[in-house]
Amino acid sequence: MPRWEPNARERLVEAALELFEARGFEQTAVADITARAGLTERTFFNCFSNKREVLFYGAEKLEVFLVESVASAPASGSAMEVVAAALGAVARASDEWPGFAEFARRSDALLHIQAELRERELAKLASLGAAMAGALRRRAVSAPQARLAAEVGIAVFKVAFERCMSDRKRRKLALHLRDAMADLARLKVVSSCTGTVKPTRRRSPRR
Amino acid sequence: MPRWEPNARERLVEAALELFEARGFEQTAVADITARAGLTERTFFNCFSNKREVLFYGAEKLEVFLVESVASAPASGSAMEVVAAALGAVARASDEWPGFAEFARRSDALLHIQAELRERELAKLASLGAAMAGALRRRAVSAPQARLAAEVGIAVFKVAFERCMSDRKRRKLALHLRDAMADLARLKVVSSCTGTVKPTRRRSPRR
Repeated sequence: MPRWEPNARERLVEAALELFEARGFEQTAVADITARAGLTERTFFNCFSNKREVLFYGAEKLEVFLVESVASAPASGSAMEVVAAALGAVARASDEWPGFAEFARRSDALLHIQAELRERELAKLASLGAAMAGALRRRAVSAPQARLAAEVGIAVFKVAFERCMSDRKRRKLALHLRDAMADLARLKVVSSCTGTVKPTRRRSPRR
Repeated sequence: MPRWEPNARERLVEAALELFEARGFEQTAVADITARAGLTERTFFNCFSNKREVLFYGAEKLEVFLVESVASAPASGSAMEVVAAALGAVARASDEWPGFAEFARRSDALLHIQAELRERELAKLASLGAAMAGALRRRAVSAPQARLAAEVGIAVFKVAFERCMSDRKRRKLALHLRDAMADLARLKVVSSCTGTVKPTRRRSPRR
């Protein structure tokens, strides 16, 4: 019978991050991670499908939470308001998760070293966008509008996450998301892209 | 001395697409592609770094053209106006490229079968976004604004491309981009995402 291991997941994440940082991702095997964590490979594979997924710890919960947030938003909201509210809920939940800021910074640094991991992160973001578009469609938003609102929402979330990761003051993700959404609202969105840029409009505000 | 082969690149693209479609991407070797095209492997590797890159034929030129379009946009445009104008120029150039619609549809269908290829496409889009943000920064747009405008632009371009690929009437990419940019302008962007969705605003229009 498998022994119940307290905080197995957290111990594996910590051991994996330490080894990835010290030796590199490629040079670290699952056996090294379990040895360092004092756990079995069986326990590892109960928690993660492979060593790469350790760096995306929490991503599945996040997607479920995002979809639920879209579904439970007030019926009267526009597609983009629903997206903004749902992403805001995800950012706040992330900020409240103990160790999130630390884990996010360490895994983000590792993702930037390894192209394969970076591509995996982009795939996770695309999956998040597809899930959000699906949830919007279940709210009777048309397919083209749902895709657009979801993709724009993911673009803003990605930028907010980047700003959060490079913020020396370590302000919370929810705050960066709020600022990025405000910046989106201030973007002078043009309704035509036929190439003529009207010279009368002023430049976007500098930060 | 290598013999000059007329239309080598196009012949390799056509041979590769036919084989990928008939046998599958994994089951096709570079040697199969060159045999079908009546060309040498040396010629293949002069054109493409590997068989995967055949499906992204033109992507590098597109990135260079996008960066040039951002650089040459009128000085008075806002960041988002510049992005819209540059993406519009890219879409029109693509539409004018003989065989673009056919190639785009066939490669897009193949990308949706193979997860690895799909991740590569997302990486190419991310690279396009980074290149555009860099070009905006060289126009003295601040880094946070440049990242946001570029990412939102890429999100709209991605949606326009998807709509173009699934358009049974086969309307041009530039037209789909114009429509998607107009939809972006119509999205009710909220300047706050603290979770309160104002119940007085009406639902986004359905298409």
